[in-house]
Amino acid sequence: MKRFIICAIAAATMLAGCSKPESKEDLTRYVDPLIGTAGMGHTFPGACVPFGGVQVSPDTDTIPHNVGGTYQPEVYSLCAGYRYTDSTIVGFSHTHLSGTGHSDLGDVLLMPTSGNLQLNPGTAWHPEGGYRSRFSHETEQAMPGYYAVTLKDYGIRAEMTATTRTARHRYTFPRDGERHIVADLSHGIYNYEGKTLWASVRMQSDNLLTGYRITQGWARERYTYFAIRFSRPVRDYGYRESVTSAYNGFWRKLPVSRNFPEMAGRGIVCWFDFDWDSEGGSDANTLEVEVALSSTSVEGALKNLAAEQDGRTFEQIADAARADWNAELGKLRAEGTTDQLRMLYTSLYHTMINPSVYSDVDGAYRGLDGAVHHSDGDNYTVFSLWDTYRAEHPLLLLMHPDRARDIVVSMLDHQAQSAHGLLPIWSLMANEGWCMSGYHAVSVLSDAVGAGLQLDGSRVLDAMTSTATVPYLEGLGSYIEKGFVPLETSGTGASTTLEYAYDDWSIYRAAEILGRKDIAGTYRARALNYRNLFDGSSPFARARYADGSWKIPSDPRQTYGEGFIEGNSYNFSFHVPHDVDGLMDLMGGEKQFLSILDTLFNLPLAPEYYADNEDIEESCLIGGYVHGNEPSHHIPYLFQWTSEPWRTAYWIREIMEKMYVPQRDGLGGNDDCGQMSAWYIFSALGFYPVCPGSGEFVLGAPYLPEMSITLDGGRTLTVKAPEVSSRNRYVKAVRLNGKPYTRRYLTRQDILRGGVLEFDMADTPAPASAPEAADLPYSLSRAAD
Amino acid sequence: MKRFIICAIAAATMLAGCSKPESKEDLTRYVDPLIGTAGMGHTFPGACVPFGGVQVSPDTDTIPHNVGGTYQPEVYSLCAGYRYTDSTIVGFSHTHLSGTGHSDLGDVLLMPTSGNLQLNPGTAWHPEGGYRSRFSHETEQAMPGYYAVTLKDYGIRAEMTATTRTARHRYTFPRDGERHIVADLSHGIYNYEGKTLWASVRMQSDNLLTGYRITQGWARERYTYFAIRFSRPVRDYGYRESVTSAYNGFWRKLPVSRNFPEMAGRGIVCWFDFDWDSEGGSDANTLEVEVALSSTSVEGALKNLAAEQDGRTFEQIADAARADWNAELGKLRAEGTTDQLRMLYTSLYHTMINPSVYSDVDGAYRGLDGAVHHSDGDNYTVFSLWDTYRAEHPLLLLMHPDRARDIVVSMLDHQAQSAHGLLPIWSLMANEGWCMSGYHAVSVLSDAVGAGLQLDGSRVLDAMTSTATVPYLEGLGSYIEKGFVPLETSGTGASTTLEYAYDDWSIYRAAEILGRKDIAGTYRARALNYRNLFDGSSPFARARYADGSWKIPSDPRQTYGEGFIEGNSYNFSFHVPHDVDGLMDLMGGEKQFLSILDTLFNLPLAPEYYADNEDIEESCLIGGYVHGNEPSHHIPYLFQWTSEPWRTAYWIREIMEKMYVPQRDGLGGNDDCGQMSAWYIFSALGFYPVCPGSGEFVLGAPYLPEMSITLDGGRTLTVKAPEVSSRNRYVKAVRLNGKPYTRRYLTRQDILRGGVLEFDMADTPAPASAPEAADLPYSLSRAAD
Repeated sequence: MKRFIICAIAAATMLAGCSKPESKEDLTRYVDPLIGTAGMGHTFPGACVPFGGVQVSPDTDTIPHNVGGTYQPEVYSLCAGYRYTDSTIVGFSHTHLSGTGHSDLGDVLLMPTSGNLQLNPGTAWHPEGGYRSRFSHETEQAMPGYYAVTLKDYGIRAEMTATTRTARHRYTFPRDGERHIVADLSHGIYNYEGKTLWASVRMQSDNLLTGYRITQGWARERYTYFAIRFSRPVRDYGYRESVTSAYNGFWRKLPVSRNFPEMAGRGIVCWFDFDWDSEGGSDANTLEVEVALSSTSVEGALKNLAAEQDGRTFEQIADAARADWNAELGKLRAEGTTDQLRMLYTSLYHTMINPSVYSDVDGAYRGLDGAVHHSDGDNYTVFSLWDTYRAEHPLLLLMHPDRARDIVVSMLDHQAQSAHGLLPIWSLMANEGWCMSGYHAVSVLSDAVGAGLQLDGSRVLDAMTSTATVPYLEGLGSYIEKGFVPLETSGTGASTTLEYAYDDWSIYRAAEILGRKDIAGTYRARALNYRNLFDGSSPFARARYADGSWKIPSDPRQTYGEGFIEGNSYNFSFHVPHDVDGLMDLMGGEKQFLSILDTLFNLPLAPEYYADNEDIEESCLIGGYVHGNEPSHHIPYLFQWTSEPWRTAYWIREIMEKMYVPQRDGLGGNDDCGQMSAWYIFSALGFYPVCPGSGEFVLGAPYLPEMSITLDGGRTLTVKAPEVSSRNRYVKAVRLNGKPYTRRYLTRQDILRGGVLEFDMADTPAPASAPEAADLPYSLSRAAD
Repeated sequence: MKRFIICAIAAATMLAGCSKPESKEDLTRYVDPLIGTAGMGHTFPGACVPFGGVQVSPDTDTIPHNVGGTYQPEVYSLCAGYRYTDSTIVGFSHTHLSGTGHSDLGDVLLMPTSGNLQLNPGTAWHPEGGYRSRFSHETEQAMPGYYAVTLKDYGIRAEMTATTRTARHRYTFPRDGERHIVADLSHGIYNYEGKTLWASVRMQSDNLLTGYRITQGWARERYTYFAIRFSRPVRDYGYRESVTSAYNGFWRKLPVSRNFPEMAGRGIVCWFDFDWDSEGGSDANTLEVEVALSSTSVEGALKNLAAEQDGRTFEQIADAARADWNAELGKLRAEGTTDQLRMLYTSLYHTMINPSVYSDVDGAYRGLDGAVHHSDGDNYTVFSLWDTYRAEHPLLLLMHPDRARDIVVSMLDHQAQSAHGLLPIWSLMANEGWCMSGYHAVSVLSDAVGAGLQLDGSRVLDAMTSTATVPYLEGLGSYIEKGFVPLETSGTGASTTLEYAYDDWSIYRAAEILGRKDIAGTYRARALNYRNLFDGSSPFARARYADGSWKIPSDPRQTYGEGFIEGNSYNFSFHVPHDVDGLMDLMGGEKQFLSILDTLFNLPLAPEYYADNEDIEESCLIGGYVHGNEPSHHIPYLFQWTSEPWRTAYWIREIMEKMYVPQRDGLGGNDDCGQMSAWYIFSALGFYPVCPGSGEFVLGAPYLPEMSITLDGGRTLTVKAPEVSSRNRYVKAVRLNGKPYTRRYLTRQDILRGGVLEFDMADTPAPASAPEAADLPYSLSRAAD
């Protein structure tokens, strides 16, 4: 409950003031990268630029995970490398995932130290035993593109900023004593002995080093090349092996450990001492470090270093990063209290970290096949698609159509490079991460086709159908044969069936737009497979066995063993975003549908249903509704298909106020590469893409008195709700460009056309009213074939 | 002594017949790749083309070496993967070193099996427990470019042939039973758990697989990419992990072990079953396998596969390989007994295996810096320079000047890619192997400069001087400072000093030719550093300590602990090939010099001086002369600087008859990438490059009645000695093109000009006679500055 106490304080401070940022205002001041760094958020506080491939950030612990497949809870809480409640910093590494529930990365850890040289990280409970340092949050400064902290044990001020493919560090040492830089190439997030398959470092000159490491982990085999330039010449250097390599020929006879310009092994920790009488710092105690990464080669890293550091000062790079963020944040203007604006802009910030640019400045990138490829645009990676197809990708498509196209092309390239002919499921730096279920890239592609992005239509359809027919992909063969994924084939066969059915609808939709009736027919039929989980006796989806029999008994509130991934049937049964009408029929009509929705939000889920589930905590629950697990995200919008649409406005506001608090531990679930944040942005605007690919955004209710988004080409959509407040949360009437608007959704065209969308708000719900069919959002059962 | 019994029999059979091959004759029939596969030779029997990068050959054991740096004797005897005395074959791998004393490689092992599938190699003492098979030498056929054997346990006939970058296998299975191909990517020569850092295999289609492995070992970090095409479609396939990977994300939840087109891990053993009703074999029971390797990429391997297999039949490839060998072997014509010709042509064959082509068909290759580079000519690797600078490289320069130039360029490129600015010492596939001492690449470069190869002179000198000034290279800093390598700095400081001094002479010589008097002066002075090991009280070189004091006592016959690598002071004191006159003075004049030489050859070395030295066996000794260790190779020619030159002829013939017997165990030492064989070729011709870089070849005595070599441009040098025999081993008179020839050496020009070199032979030595100074071979002390 700790978090809710903080919430209450936060809610109180929200009343303090209300402001509307000026158009030239520095909006980054509303972004607090520390939001979500405690509790469930799993965000990191470090520096990056929008969609940058380098995220330089402090890592506060390294769990030496005991190999053997046992999943350590500590790993879960350290997905982003940083845990607000930790009191030591191990060092600053250059790659971090934003808000995930599983972990990897933490590449190329640098740590400045003073005093005796130590080459092991030490432990949180005995930091003196290693190179890590204690720190106090009071010394931390985290803002878009800049992070700083004082390393208490050493008295070193560490500052860092970033470009797309590089980082710049500035370390200010105390006046006296030994000064070292440690570069730990065996460090990693989700670390364990053997994670680093090989690491290699070369001194190219007295201030330039290059190298790479190959790691195993969640990304099965990952290559990180780097180039590091120090602002002062290295005077002495060396390394120790943290993991002993097997026999390595005659190297052991060489004087390799000190001032030998090739350092390599299974796990190496390098150190560097400098010539402090040289030029190379803003003052006598300052050292700067430029770090470039590349997936392709040392040459690629050197190109990235040259292109993006480009002789600029630390301040110039930090200013450019802030300017980049301001340009992106400035696409959204809003009026609200400081805390509301902090939550809004921090959310917007979090939608622009992943996906991340993966290609070098010249377009070279490592493909899923391990080979180096070239892309015309930027190649992107980190696609947490089970999460992000819902709102993150629709938001990118609206606000960053050029990037959205590069992202879709990156997915198509991934498919072309896949041994399975599969589109990405969880794309993780030239690796398929195989995390979660479905093949939701088809949703992103379909939405892009619907939005009219310039794409090769037959390539898109080939990639979609190739993906949707890989028989060994989690029960897909059985699904194609039987219309559902049997429990024997997959322990989460029920939720997977629901996900496949929506994905198949996406393919149907794209095929229809692209004029391929044959494909459309096949996948329209498959889109109805969700029906195969409803047995007619219960309103809830239920798992089935291969012989067609049902899992009996089954408990719709239970999150374990019932065939549903990260959730229960109570939530997952609503996962039919493409055919809400059809679902409502299966559930027994509107009254029953409303009753189940109502119960979902109101009846608390007893702890025995989720206690061992790391993704669910009591603080994340609203009744039995689990906002932290994405399958629920569209559910509060489903009231819009009923005669009680006001309930959407009610629950949206509840969720926004309870699950998004501008505090360290304020996020009610993993941010999941921006999906949670994208949900917030859409919901704050007053509409949400319940069914990506439909081209529709279902109305909710605006959160703030005024918001506007500037779209590609400069058009602006302004959403006004002057009377809105937590109390005045209900929508009385809507006008688009002055005209009454009765439809319960906006189309993409409505948004892109720009203009003013006005909401009249009230403190009481409008009376129930049966909707006009023409005003209802899309449903496959209602749509013309 | 076992080998010497075989010798005696061999000597008897030599008398059986004498023949001179016709010019169209298939000379490959004189080549027996099995010579040297027992005992010390460390040659392999498999198939390759001249200087080919692929050597496909049976491996008869894999020692699971216990990690920790302990050197296992079993590893030594299995350097080439094959040991004639073994009775099982593990499989056929694609890379092998020829005649080395240390080991690595054995990449991409294939093994056809029948019956129950087994995925571990089994053991020599219990072959039924694994996929290996017993075999009988009676079923073996080994010839240049072709190897075949019957796998007894399976009744499978395995045949293989090669191109420069690919191999072709043909497996004929018994009529009935299960048939499998095993591909073991954890197999290796000098194997141990963890040698394979990562291996990855992809099914690209139903008969094409691609992949790579990254290994550690003698080559610290080596990349082997491959493409494998089967002549029949794969029906089923899978793998097991022989070394468990650490956590690999969600892969473990996937059905990866069978028919899943991505197989990867720390150690994987794959299996393939085929559709035998398909087309794709010369008969119903035959499967062919094409295998291409590349150091750069899967794409490189596919290019190599396409270019070199090129739709040809097995016979076409094997015929082309034989034709290539015939073209190269045909440069040497000789008259002799069948056994003499077998030894001669097998030796010539062994001079053309290493160095090996390392670049792809398009010139791409992996450089020492790990990056992919492109070469105009072929890039070469496997430079065992401590051995091969002596005779192998001089032979290449004479007989293969185009390749010799590519080899020199490969060395220069290696230097440019070195973190140390070092020329290769032991170049092993994009790795510096750091084996043995000196920087003898400078000798090869200097000899090439002297021969007038088209090279960038300043690049050559820069590479040489950069190499000769790396202070941390085995005592080089001290050597530069003090004129010798102290024992404290290197346990083999004495021999290293002698080697550096000769290498420095090479640099002096090249600098002189290239007109750089400054460099010449510096290195001429350094070339005299050998003098610093002679204390005036003893005729033997002796190790010194950093303070200048001498190692006392020191035993010139002891091979351990006296400061000499692979040898003793007795042999190594003669390692002053560039200044024999100067050495003779230091040793106390000609009489003492002759006396020491005489004792060296005549006084047996007691076992306690070498018993623990794996490179020396009693059978390799002639008195205290150790032919198997290269520092001795020029010693028998040193009599030519004295008044008793006939002793050269005597000992040369002794060495040739005792150390080179055309038997499995007939080689008196590791062939060392062709150095032992090149010594034989030169010595058989009657001259030897005692001091590479001098452009002189010191006369010995021809071994056969007639030999001729065809040189670049078609000119031929014929060496005639019609009366020569083991008895008539002494030279009475020499004529070059009909004119009496009194010089005790030939120049490179003499050889390249071609013509006829006639030797009158006798059964008694000519009386001692003081040489005319003008007739003596090169000596720095005598040469004009």
